[in-house]
Amino acid sequence: MASESGKLWGGRFVGAVDPIMEKFNASIAYDRHLWEVDVQGSRGYSRGLEKAGLLTKAEMDQILHGLDKVAEEWAQGTFKLSPNDEDIHTANERRLKELIGETAGKLHTGRSRNDQVVTDLRLWMRQTCSTLSGLLWELIRTMVDRAEAERDVLFPGYTHLQRAQPIRWSHWILSHAVALTRDSERLLEVRKRINVLPLGSGAIAGNPLGVDRELLRAELNFGAITLNSMDATSERDFVAEFLFWASLCMTHLSRMAEDLILYCTKEFSFVQLSDAYSTGSSLMPQKKNPDSLELIRSKAGRVFGRCAGLLMTLKGLPSTYNKDLQEDKEAVFEVSDTMSAVLQVATGVISTLQIHRENMGQALSPDMLATDLAYYLVRKGMPFRQAHEASGKAVFMAESKGVALNELSLQELQTISPLFSGDVSCVWDYGHSVEQYGALGGTARSSVDWQIRQVRALLQTQQA
Amino acid sequence: MASESGKLWGGRFVGAVDPIMEKFNASIAYDRHLWEVDVQGSRGYSRGLEKAGLLTKAEMDQILHGLDKVAEEWAQGTFKLSPNDEDIHTANERRLKELIGETAGKLHTGRSRNDQVVTDLRLWMRQTCSTLSGLLWELIRTMVDRAEAERDVLFPGYTHLQRAQPIRWSHWILSHAVALTRDSERLLEVRKRINVLPLGSGAIAGNPLGVDRELLRAELNFGAITLNSMDATSERDFVAEFLFWASLCMTHLSRMAEDLILYCTKEFSFVQLSDAYSTGSSLMPQKKNPDSLELIRSKAGRVFGRCAGLLMTLKGLPSTYNKDLQEDKEAVFEVSDTMSAVLQVATGVISTLQIHRENMGQALSPDMLATDLAYYLVRKGMPFRQAHEASGKAVFMAESKGVALNELSLQELQTISPLFSGDVSCVWDYGHSVEQYGALGGTARSSVDWQIRQVRALLQTQQA
Amino acid sequence: MASESGKLWGGRFVGAVDPIMEKFNASIAYDRHLWEVDVQGSRGYSRGLEKAGLLTKAEMDQILHGLDKVAEEWAQGTFKLSPNDEDIHTANERRLKELIGETAGKLHTGRSRNDQVVTDLRLWMRQTCSTLSGLLWELIRTMVDRAEAERDVLFPGYTHLQRAQPIRWSHWILSHAVALTRDSERLLEVRKRINVLPLGSGAIAGNPLGVDRELLRAELNFGAITLNSMDATSERDFVAEFLFWASLCMTHLSRMAEDLILYCTKEFSFVQLSDAYSTGSSLMPQKKNPDSLELIRSKAGRVFGRCAGLLMTLKGLPSTYNKDLQEDKEAVFEVSDTMSAVLQVATGVISTLQIHRENMGQALSPDMLATDLAYYLVRKGMPFRQAHEASGKAVFMAESKGVALNELSLQELQTISPLFSGDVSCVWDYGHSVEQYGALGGTARSSVDWQIRQVRALLQTQQA
Amino acid sequence: MASESGKLWGGRFVGAVDPIMEKFNASIAYDRHLWEVDVQGSRGYSRGLEKAGLLTKAEMDQILHGLDKVAEEWAQGTFKLSPNDEDIHTANERRLKELIGETAGKLHTGRSRNDQVVTDLRLWMRQTCSTLSGLLWELIRTMVDRAEAERDVLFPGYTHLQRAQPIRWSHWILSHAVALTRDSERLLEVRKRINVLPLGSGAIAGNPLGVDRELLRAELNFGAITLNSMDATSERDFVAEFLFWASLCMTHLSRMAEDLILYCTKEFSFVQLSDAYSTGSSLMPQKKNPDSLELIRSKAGRVFGRCAGLLMTLKGLPSTYNKDLQEDKEAVFEVSDTMSAVLQVATGVISTLQIHRENMGQALSPDMLATDLAYYLVRKGMPFRQAHEASGKAVFMAESKGVALNELSLQELQTISPLFSGDVSCVWDYGHSVEQYGALGGTARSSVDWQIRQVRALLQTQQA
Repeated sequence: MASESGKLWGGRFVGAVDPIMEKFNASIAYDRHLWEVDVQGSRGYSRGLEKAGLLTKAEMDQILHGLDKVAEEWAQGTFKLSPNDEDIHTANERRLKELIGETAGKLHTGRSRNDQVVTDLRLWMRQTCSTLSGLLWELIRTMVDRAEAERDVLFPGYTHLQRAQPIRWSHWILSHAVALTRDSERLLEVRKRINVLPLGSGAIAGNPLGVDRELLRAELNFGAITLNSMDATSERDFVAEFLFWASLCMTHLSRMAEDLILYCTKEFSFVQLSDAYSTGSSLMPQKKNPDSLELIRSKAGRVFGRCAGLLMTLKGLPSTYNKDLQEDKEAVFEVSDTMSAVLQVATGVISTLQIHRENMGQALSPDMLATDLAYYLVRKGMPFRQAHEASGKAVFMAESKGVALNELSLQELQTISPLFSGDVSCVWDYGHSVEQYGALGGTARSSVDWQIRQVRALLQTQQA
Repeated sequence: MASESGKLWGGRFVGAVDPIMEKFNASIAYDRHLWEVDVQGSRGYSRGLEKAGLLTKAEMDQILHGLDKVAEEWAQGTFKLSPNDEDIHTANERRLKELIGETAGKLHTGRSRNDQVVTDLRLWMRQTCSTLSGLLWELIRTMVDRAEAERDVLFPGYTHLQRAQPIRWSHWILSHAVALTRDSERLLEVRKRINVLPLGSGAIAGNPLGVDRELLRAELNFGAITLNSMDATSERDFVAEFLFWASLCMTHLSRMAEDLILYCTKEFSFVQLSDAYSTGSSLMPQKKNPDSLELIRSKAGRVFGRCAGLLMTLKGLPSTYNKDLQEDKEAVFEVSDTMSAVLQVATGVISTLQIHRENMGQALSPDMLATDLAYYLVRKGMPFRQAHEASGKAVFMAESKGVALNELSLQELQTISPLFSGDVSCVWDYGHSVEQYGALGGTARSSVDWQIRQVRALLQTQQA
Repeated sequence: MASESGKLWGGRFVGAVDPIMEKFNASIAYDRHLWEVDVQGSRGYSRGLEKAGLLTKAEMDQILHGLDKVAEEWAQGTFKLSPNDEDIHTANERRLKELIGETAGKLHTGRSRNDQVVTDLRLWMRQTCSTLSGLLWELIRTMVDRAEAERDVLFPGYTHLQRAQPIRWSHWILSHAVALTRDSERLLEVRKRINVLPLGSGAIAGNPLGVDRELLRAELNFGAITLNSMDATSERDFVAEFLFWASLCMTHLSRMAEDLILYCTKEFSFVQLSDAYSTGSSLMPQKKNPDSLELIRSKAGRVFGRCAGLLMTLKGLPSTYNKDLQEDKEAVFEVSDTMSAVLQVATGVISTLQIHRENMGQALSPDMLATDLAYYLVRKGMPFRQAHEASGKAVFMAESKGVALNELSLQELQTISPLFSGDVSCVWDYGHSVEQYGALGGTARSSVDWQIRQVRALLQTQQA
Repeated sequence: MASESGKLWGGRFVGAVDPIMEKFNASIAYDRHLWEVDVQGSRGYSRGLEKAGLLTKAEMDQILHGLDKVAEEWAQGTFKLSPNDEDIHTANERRLKELIGETAGKLHTGRSRNDQVVTDLRLWMRQTCSTLSGLLWELIRTMVDRAEAERDVLFPGYTHLQRAQPIRWSHWILSHAVALTRDSERLLEVRKRINVLPLGSGAIAGNPLGVDRELLRAELNFGAITLNSMDATSERDFVAEFLFWASLCMTHLSRMAEDLILYCTKEFSFVQLSDAYSTGSSLMPQKKNPDSLELIRSKAGRVFGRCAGLLMTLKGLPSTYNKDLQEDKEAVFEVSDTMSAVLQVATGVISTLQIHRENMGQALSPDMLATDLAYYLVRKGMPFRQAHEASGKAVFMAESKGVALNELSLQELQTISPLFSGDVSCVWDYGHSVEQYGALGGTARSSVDWQIRQVRALLQTQQA
């Protein structure tokens, strides 16, 4: 009938089975990544069934033994998919049945793929979060170590990409490290919400067979259980949160990459990338390109695209499980892989970067001390607004005379304000300048040291 | 010179001032919303300056008194903007100077608009988060109250929009309420990261004048201080997080709205919207449209668009403040307003919705008990996979015979499995069905009561 | 030195080569899809070199012959990648050199990977656009054929998901087909902009060796050549446009899928999906789920996510080629595959769908004719606003009396307006109702026929 | 009943009217921008009604006269909104009735707000597209004029932000101008699809009263009529296309802004922004920030956010009009305003920018001629791959010896290849270098002139 209709309306021939639909529907091509957690979840569930009296001890042992074999086959690369294995759950249960017979058919009692898949995904992501946390900590630690070692290097701080004030190079490193500590904090919060057990929710209404969900939780080492079976099987907040976590972390890394790409240019020449993180040109023999940094920057788009895609998929979905939710896994796998690579490459880049101290020093110029000149007047009692104006006049005077700001004579300065006196010469020392910024969070050495201690303490807390 | 160049290359005339640029650059049209927190921030900062010896007690009092007047003018609607007031900070300081004279020029000592604006925004958003939390709690409470009152109403649970299993109406309400408790939890986490003081970071390098940031923190009642001045003035994580928080909350509300729009259709007829939340048609006299729900659903797009826009703006920005960051405020204001309206309208919709119990009951059909029929066999000892198949055969048999599933005779059922006996008749009772789902999170009355208690307890914790 | 630094700063060990960076940087895992167009582009380019006197005829023949062999190896699956083949261009040239020796080194004369890769991608996408156009036309044709065959079936038209007015089922089909014709038109425009030759742009400055780009264009059958070498190697408008084209097309298909998912519910029961496009439940034996439609709906998110990701990647990039652009290809490949599957599955769904005419007919109700009742009065001379109000009164009167709108007696109607007379009975005929809507684009049979002719003519024009 | 329920479930009090819902639902706050096109559309429609015999000539004249008055009140700012005017259509019709009495009630005959609002929006956007096209052409023309005037200025071309090859400054300008010509082409295509008349589609089923849509089309000067009434009232392709058009155009402008921000840095110092497009710092007296360019760059995010928001709103909507579509207008208005400002500011920036020719010249360095050195060998017969390697050796040799590439002696070069001879000195001339790139699209003067002619011709065609 279907195929006749197909002919009637002129569409391509369609029999009982449309191979394109089969492929479109199947998730095994990617959800096979879940093989280990699927076995793990089933192990936990079979213990729950035994406690509930739905499996005998012997049946449970038989199932656990079979699951061990399934896992072994996956681990050794000998697991053979059959054409009907549309997803990892079907594949594993099919194989279990081949291995242990009809008892395998008891494993799915009271369970639905709806609660199974989301349990699997949470197990997988819980592990991924731990891995990514570790990589993130290593990156932050590398940055902090470097900040500590190079804290006497000064260079220009920019706002609007215009030279603004002298700062410590370590202050720059720490500005990015501090941003990453927020990512680390957020990842722990996301992990907390991932680490909630949905198993025992069935397809929609819950579990009717006396399975003890608290026991399942303990078996699978989750932090809590989901509260409502309809919500549990269809909410993907934890996926959306993870994708957004990654997106925000990537905007941080994209900004650090942007800075370093600039600092690598001939024009800035503050840093030099290790060859391991650069590439040449197929046409121009002299080129050395910061590909690693450009790739990091670009991945911010890709990762956010996955976040945007999932949110759009979720928008306006009716309650409970709809097949639309199958979009979650590829996004998670791709973003996890990307984050893992990005974090490791960033660590490699930072740990092997060379800095050109002389270039950094030479890029400091007296006009960057105009703010300090204003503060000089403030300390002499002038209201800041007037001091700002007076300093602006000095900048203008120097420009008009074609000299550097620190080359104005005391007399010249005194035409602007009588408050200027001989001690103004102290202003023209970059080392002195940065040391003034001693309030917490500033670029004085004491404050940079404080920052280093703070970040180290944070890492220790987060790893606890 | 500029204008001549303009003529030379054929562009529109440009003199010293381009009015379109001025408007493009100015933020006063929207950042005036910050008037109150700008005054609040300046009050705190002047106390910090006094402690640091940069203001005398008398000067501080003069400034505080002047700021009170500025605030009063805003509150009474008598504050007059001048054409040069490009932003709220400029406007307030300009007015302060008019009111108290040159001392006003001391207020900005060591402060930059870079740390000032982000302090203001954090103060504003801190308050907004509290307001939105309150509205969210009221919505959740309304849902829980309703769930408690109507917990004996049964209706079809759907997966893939196909009738799946009988559930309690309260179970459906709670599925959405539980999702919102996660939003509430997340909002508290976002608020925690908003509630961090950046003041004292200056433009980029920090504060060089001995201002005590811990004192500022205490004055302005922040939970912590930012760690790095470069990061503090240019990170907008807290904005991005807030926008994403709103986006995810809106996907929840869009899904609830979608369900209710369906339940309002003639075809479902489970619920009826109050007239206060419906509108008529300009053409079709018989129409009553669920506009409130459609608007809620649609706002998920708008809110997420703002989140996407901000992340794209942040991508690849160089370190520290760039004018690009000015995009943050309109997004925050629009999304805050939208969330406030949506949460209140949703509360109104839920609290005034009428349900049609008879229609709900009549929509239950015996085929929705096919899963229970399988469980019946499981309880008699049949492995679930076989039981699932046996129940499937019964469904097919009933369809073939053109009868309802519960109209198959015991003899007919026994041709499928000898395990069927007289007690199978208990299966065909919807009330009995739902009561089986007693595991935590399920649709049995005890579990629904547990959910209600859990959500109430959560709310109490979060409000603490 | 790098590795020492690495140790110093505590990062992971990094020698001359970081395997994670190598994998991160390489594109061969996905750009191998371009093997055929890469060979094609090189064939064209070697002809250009020969014309410019940079290759002798014999050298050209040697290269062409070698390229044939390379292509043959790919086609037969015998091409062996070497570990240093970071991208398809390197791989093919490396192999060519193995096959024909040093002459291979002349092929890249004046060419850069920057212009090579974008030429390849345009060749690939040009072909993909043609394929997708064909699949889209088949879907539209299937819909139009079906619309023609079933044009006498009436069912409710909805606005706001509330029953609005009776319409032809074909009118609904055509509403979606017409939307797809715009996608088809847009795809042709995108293809036109894809079909522009960048080859001969070098890395950035152009080609300095007298290669005739018009000749290359003709060789490779492009419609035009790019105007500026810097733009040519770094603009990805054609990719962004393609991804947006797909996104908009998917929103159309998501809306059609949404309608059909609703029409498949028990509550609507207007249509039934072929088994080939449905799946069952692992838990609930009676379920038949519209997975195909849900997947189509969900892909709108995924495809748009790719579009969003690319735009974010492009935002704020400096001029010319940056490695960030490497993100383009995976997006294109994934979206092309998705669109191909979605269009074919949609065609299968539409061509095999069964409709339930009786249910459709029974869903029509007299209140849906309230608008026609107002028009009745308009035809008798009453201003529309009054007629709308009068019809509203009739609806209310019928509701109050608990009767259908068409069961009000003439006397009752005349209490609302004396313009009602015996001929009002004609209003209550659904077939008569739809036939009134004879203006172009309406639901009358003549207009539906006109629509069918219009869409057929459009298809013919577009295929020309 | 509603309010009692409200009390029962603890929600906020809700009577017959919820003021928050009223505000949430109303669109008059922004759709008042449509006043002029709403009047225009009604004028056209009243002519259609007269032709169809639904209005007498006298009634039509009365309505047209009344509409003139309505328009006059809007134009003069004397139109007074009433609290019940939820949208512009209601407001204008209400006022018309006040002005001319009951005849006003005939204007909406056969029309629905569904087809009315989309007609209005298309009229408005048609005009906006024309305006934006004009602004875009002015920007392109300014760029081309400038390119023509400054075509003898050379400076470094960059790839990966590394100095690559010498190019003409005009070549850089044209690379951005050429990108904008594609935006211009696309905008014309979008306008073509905007310029299609939906009026006469009613709410969903079409028009039943003999209104001639071709006549309406001619009256309102549309290019075509919509084909299907259901599609016509609910498709927002033209809005999505417009928002995407703006998004892609903004990525172009964001890239140009990024380049110019870099060129404005102290480190590059290639260009200087006019004061009219820069601003100072509230803290640092010496700063001059490129705010105009940063704002242009940032708006790419905002504009794309609106595009993303609309697409998400559209995703999965059921057929025909749903209130969700009300989200279209604010997006269109905001994006139109943004594009208008951005294009004008960009024109101002480009036309008033000063370039520093000496800095540009000094930034050229001999290593940027390494590619030309390779081509030198190619011209002597060496295969490119070997020549590339030989040139790379020269670069390395110069670096090792601490000299510039052009300071290697002939003898030294000959140790690399015997093909080097005295004429190699020609390579070291930047002017000579660029002149080699004479293929179409390259940076030679002839090719730059060709580009200028091509863009001018394109503009002429597009304006026709």
